[in-house]
Amino acid sequence: MKPSVGLIGLGLMGRPIAANLLKKGFSLTVWNRTASRAQDLVSQGARLVATPHEAAAASDVLIMIVSDPPAVEQVLWGEKGAFSGLRRGSVLVDSSTVSPELARRSAAACAERGIEYLDAPVTGGTWGAEKGELVMMVGGAAETLKRVEPIFGAIAKRWFHLGPAGAGQTVKLAMNLLLALEVEALAEALALTTAGGVAGERLVEVMQSSMGRAPVLDVKAPLLLERKYPPSFPLRLMHKDLALALDLAKQLGVSLPAGSAARDVYAKILNSAREDLDYAAIGRYWDKAAGA
Amino acid sequence: MKPSVGLIGLGLMGRPIAANLLKKGFSLTVWNRTASRAQDLVSQGARLVATPHEAAAASDVLIMIVSDPPAVEQVLWGEKGAFSGLRRGSVLVDSSTVSPELARRSAAACAERGIEYLDAPVTGGTWGAEKGELVMMVGGAAETLKRVEPIFGAIAKRWFHLGPAGAGQTVKLAMNLLLALEVEALAEALALTTAGGVAGERLVEVMQSSMGRAPVLDVKAPLLLERKYPPSFPLRLMHKDLALALDLAKQLGVSLPAGSAARDVYAKILNSAREDLDYAAIGRYWDKAAGA
Repeated sequence: MKPSVGLIGLGLMGRPIAANLLKKGFSLTVWNRTASRAQDLVSQGARLVATPHEAAAASDVLIMIVSDPPAVEQVLWGEKGAFSGLRRGSVLVDSSTVSPELARRSAAACAERGIEYLDAPVTGGTWGAEKGELVMMVGGAAETLKRVEPIFGAIAKRWFHLGPAGAGQTVKLAMNLLLALEVEALAEALALTTAGGVAGERLVEVMQSSMGRAPVLDVKAPLLLERKYPPSFPLRLMHKDLALALDLAKQLGVSLPAGSAARDVYAKILNSAREDLDYAAIGRYWDKAAGA
Repeated sequence: MKPSVGLIGLGLMGRPIAANLLKKGFSLTVWNRTASRAQDLVSQGARLVATPHEAAAASDVLIMIVSDPPAVEQVLWGEKGAFSGLRRGSVLVDSSTVSPELARRSAAACAERGIEYLDAPVTGGTWGAEKGELVMMVGGAAETLKRVEPIFGAIAKRWFHLGPAGAGQTVKLAMNLLLALEVEALAEALALTTAGGVAGERLVEVMQSSMGRAPVLDVKAPLLLERKYPPSFPLRLMHKDLALALDLAKQLGVSLPAGSAARDVYAKILNSAREDLDYAAIGRYWDKAAGA
């Protein structure tokens, strides 16, 4: 019999993940801070509950994908939180992006309660989430991963077991550092090209025939060229992930010179934006510099 | 009848370019500062001459691909230089990577002498040069490009006409800024991953399943993982190109925060290296930081 699944967090990633779980026939209980976001999923068969506690109590496997460390702490340890509902022998999968330290703290809290734990942050964006083709970076016990593989198969094309609790988050922060810097690299190259009198479109054409081409750049280049930034992966989340990566680097005594410079660009645009923008909106850094 | 071709500069890029021109049946005259490097090409049918002047005088189309702006100035304006040999109506193609300003100065000097000029720097590395699959970024007159397309077809899979003289160099500097930052991004992500206790190989696996994957990273990742850096594109040349990109940015009033931070990493490793290393050798920045 299929395990009952709970999902906490119905944002840009959580909603398509939930839809794929329903499509694959999992019994699904959902909770979201803003309950109205569950409407579509309820009509597809999800059961909406009023607290993380209820979602946890109804589930063999509880997945959470919320926006940041404070949200994770609130969901797990807060009033009517998941830890008050999770049963001994159940599994908690945290697919949020947080620090490895918080992942290890969550894992320890699970262990005390006889709950199994995985950190399993994802990459692939909303597109990957919709197609059920995410890539998951997993930390925790191999046997626990084995238990949840049928569920992961509904939402991801691949998963990598990277080590004990926290290892998934370490690699996820490194991946987002890489992605943030790749988009920063294209934005800087475009700024130089256009200031030099050549249309940015031409650089993108050359880039797409070059060793530098990357799927993330194919996706973000049109946003940078059109200066329109509807959020696929929001700037505020990428900024948070860069901050987590730089915090981790500092703890570990690792210098990340370009990552640090890029974080300042992300911070500047985030602070000046009133809308919810995609992280490609760092392109605005040069609009402003040019007085546009 | 096929135009006679001259080639000045038989480095890592020039030699395979020359070999492809010979294979396609072009009559080829070559010059190199270190004449011994022409040995193989002579046995394949190239004519080796003793000065840039002679190579220029023998050619309808003279291509040069040398390492930096001083080398270009020496070859063109130096004693027994190309300008003393190039005939009215011939074409000079500069495939070196230099500043757009030097490209415009070369173009003006050509125009005074009734010579046509293109800047046509290349991307694709030694692999692309060997396969005849370079990508060329072209500045200059469209009619001049039309004249040399049969020659470009022997060495490149695509060429982009990007604007007047200098436009090819502008886009080339932006492209190398992009590539240098992509490799810097991977090096920083690897440093964070390994310091966090996960093998770098695992990050590379995840990267290759992600939106961040890029051919340049597939090629450079093994060098970074093995900490061995045989030069494909030498660090000293990438450092020079970053310096040219940052000079251009300064002239144009464009800020490149991550590019600037990356340049400092490239400079540090270049200054401490006694061998000729590939630009992936920036990975040593973290070996040193870790005291390794």
